[in-house]
Amino acid sequence: MIEEITAQSLDTNVFIEKQCADIRAAVGEGTAINALSGGVDSSTVTMLGHRALGTRLRTVFIQNGLMREGEPEQVAAAFRSLGVPVEVIDARAEFLGALKGITDPEAKREAITQTFYRHVFGRIVRESGAKFLLQGTILTDVDETVAGIKRQHNVFEQLGIDPQQTFGYRILEPLIQLRKDGVRKLGQALGLPPELFQLPPFPGPALAARVIGEATEERMATVRRATVLVERALKGTGAFQCMAILHEDRVTGMRDGKRDFGQQIEIRCWDSVDARVATPTRVPFETLEALAREILAEVPGIVSVTYNIAPKPPSTMEAV
Amino acid sequence: MIEEITAQSLDTNVFIEKQCADIRAAVGEGTAINALSGGVDSSTVTMLGHRALGTRLRTVFIQNGLMREGEPEQVAAAFRSLGVPVEVIDARAEFLGALKGITDPEAKREAITQTFYRHVFGRIVRESGAKFLLQGTILTDVDETVAGIKRQHNVFEQLGIDPQQTFGYRILEPLIQLRKDGVRKLGQALGLPPELFQLPPFPGPALAARVIGEATEERMATVRRATVLVERALKGTGAFQCMAILHEDRVTGMRDGKRDFGQQIEIRCWDSVDARVATPTRVPFETLEALAREILAEVPGIVSVTYNIAPKPPSTMEAV
Repeated sequence: MIEEITAQSLDTNVFIEKQCADIRAAVGEGTAINALSGGVDSSTVTMLGHRALGTRLRTVFIQNGLMREGEPEQVAAAFRSLGVPVEVIDARAEFLGALKGITDPEAKREAITQTFYRHVFGRIVRESGAKFLLQGTILTDVDETVAGIKRQHNVFEQLGIDPQQTFGYRILEPLIQLRKDGVRKLGQALGLPPELFQLPPFPGPALAARVIGEATEERMATVRRATVLVERALKGTGAFQCMAILHEDRVTGMRDGKRDFGQQIEIRCWDSVDARVATPTRVPFETLEALAREILAEVPGIVSVTYNIAPKPPSTMEAV
Repeated sequence: MIEEITAQSLDTNVFIEKQCADIRAAVGEGTAINALSGGVDSSTVTMLGHRALGTRLRTVFIQNGLMREGEPEQVAAAFRSLGVPVEVIDARAEFLGALKGITDPEAKREAITQTFYRHVFGRIVRESGAKFLLQGTILTDVDETVAGIKRQHNVFEQLGIDPQQTFGYRILEPLIQLRKDGVRKLGQALGLPPELFQLPPFPGPALAARVIGEATEERMATVRRATVLVERALKGTGAFQCMAILHEDRVTGMRDGKRDFGQQIEIRCWDSVDARVATPTRVPFETLEALAREILAEVPGIVSVTYNIAPKPPSTMEAV
């Protein structure tokens, strides 16, 4: 049984002292490694680990080719300015290779998870010599695993490491007593900039979840470009979340007087408090039409743009 | 060279007299046949042929299973009330059979054309004993054939009739000197009710053009039901045209707390003067959201609804 620390009762100074001491005691003269995604949990655990171990913590950011434009560079630069070195690992070819020919959304998720743990991060961990793995697991993750919402992951098995054979690997989960609001409070105390907490939510499989059908390099570039335009145009709406989705269906268009059998971008922009129920944001038509024209002019291959008008439920926020 | 009669210069009484006399002279004691689609051209030629030949003109309406809800019954009832008998031929199974497995839009069009001429109407003509075929060809059709926009159709070849072997078949095209506005003026003079001229434009392949992918019986029923709701909700906007499009892409939804991998309806509603350029109608969000909720509640299998926000060009008015 894990003892919960509520955000309200969290004394960040005491917590940081205690966790740093525990991490140092565990790692001793060894080294630790962690994967930074840029999300609040992994960012906070990176700050905490760095506070405890300094350069004996190796932090890697895996560029999977499924992220927003400039995202790996932005995250790495933000941490560099906080004095925390982050190594960006270019694994784009490996992820795109694993996604080749896969159109089923669950199979895409599985391919991304497998590639991340078993192939890319697993290899880095095995080759690093580090025996300690720092993870940003929070209490909600534990609850969801127990409740069967998330699958029980044996992280070592996922990494392709047999702890019996390769003695000494250990996972450190310093955030496990906290929930999201506690992590935010801790992150701020550790010096994380407020922008990090304002990042729009992004699904696990990143932009691969924003293409219906196969996530090829070309299709990822299309949805990435559309995402820049959509997020920029709709930032001012104050919406809970907005996104561009690349459809697989082909629709008829016209370019230079000729028939152009092209692709469609769907825009979703959600008003919501907690993502459990949501309604489409009533974005002014002027804004929507200007955005559509921008996408049609700047994103190659797009001949049609739609705006979601269905609520959740029965829709979901993401398309796949 | 066909001598054009402009709508302005058209004297409907003189024209009707002249064309009826010509039709009677050609057909003599024989019989003629024509296919009524419910469009302005075929409706007008039906009225003219009936004026000339009475019951010696046999008018058939082919129910292809790709029409609006109640459309064949409405068209037949409208002509019946004008004293013109119309025979409704149920050819749904034949059309759906021909469309089985076909997803390419051009191939769908071709299958519908072939089924109409060669199989269904061709058989009716051959079995009818009628040697005269009344057609609503107008001058614009001729221009477009010459310009290569429409394909040159040898109607007899399409019908599977070899005029060399089956001597005596003849096509009568009494509207060939007129353009659309002239036909409308003539139709009104022949007693066609104004509602007929207010029907929203409908593409040749009918609702089969409103499904992306295969036009199965189930998918036609889905788009037909959505079309009723969309046309009813958006009638009051004064838009040039509105439509429901059934996508082939599957998107995630939720029903009764469970994941429901369902289908999407796209709504298009166009402001336009002449269909050459068009912009999305700025329908109030209240109307769009109410319509989306109605579709989600009443059309089986639909979990997502979008509204088109792209102009033509580069979009086209229809999706395929």
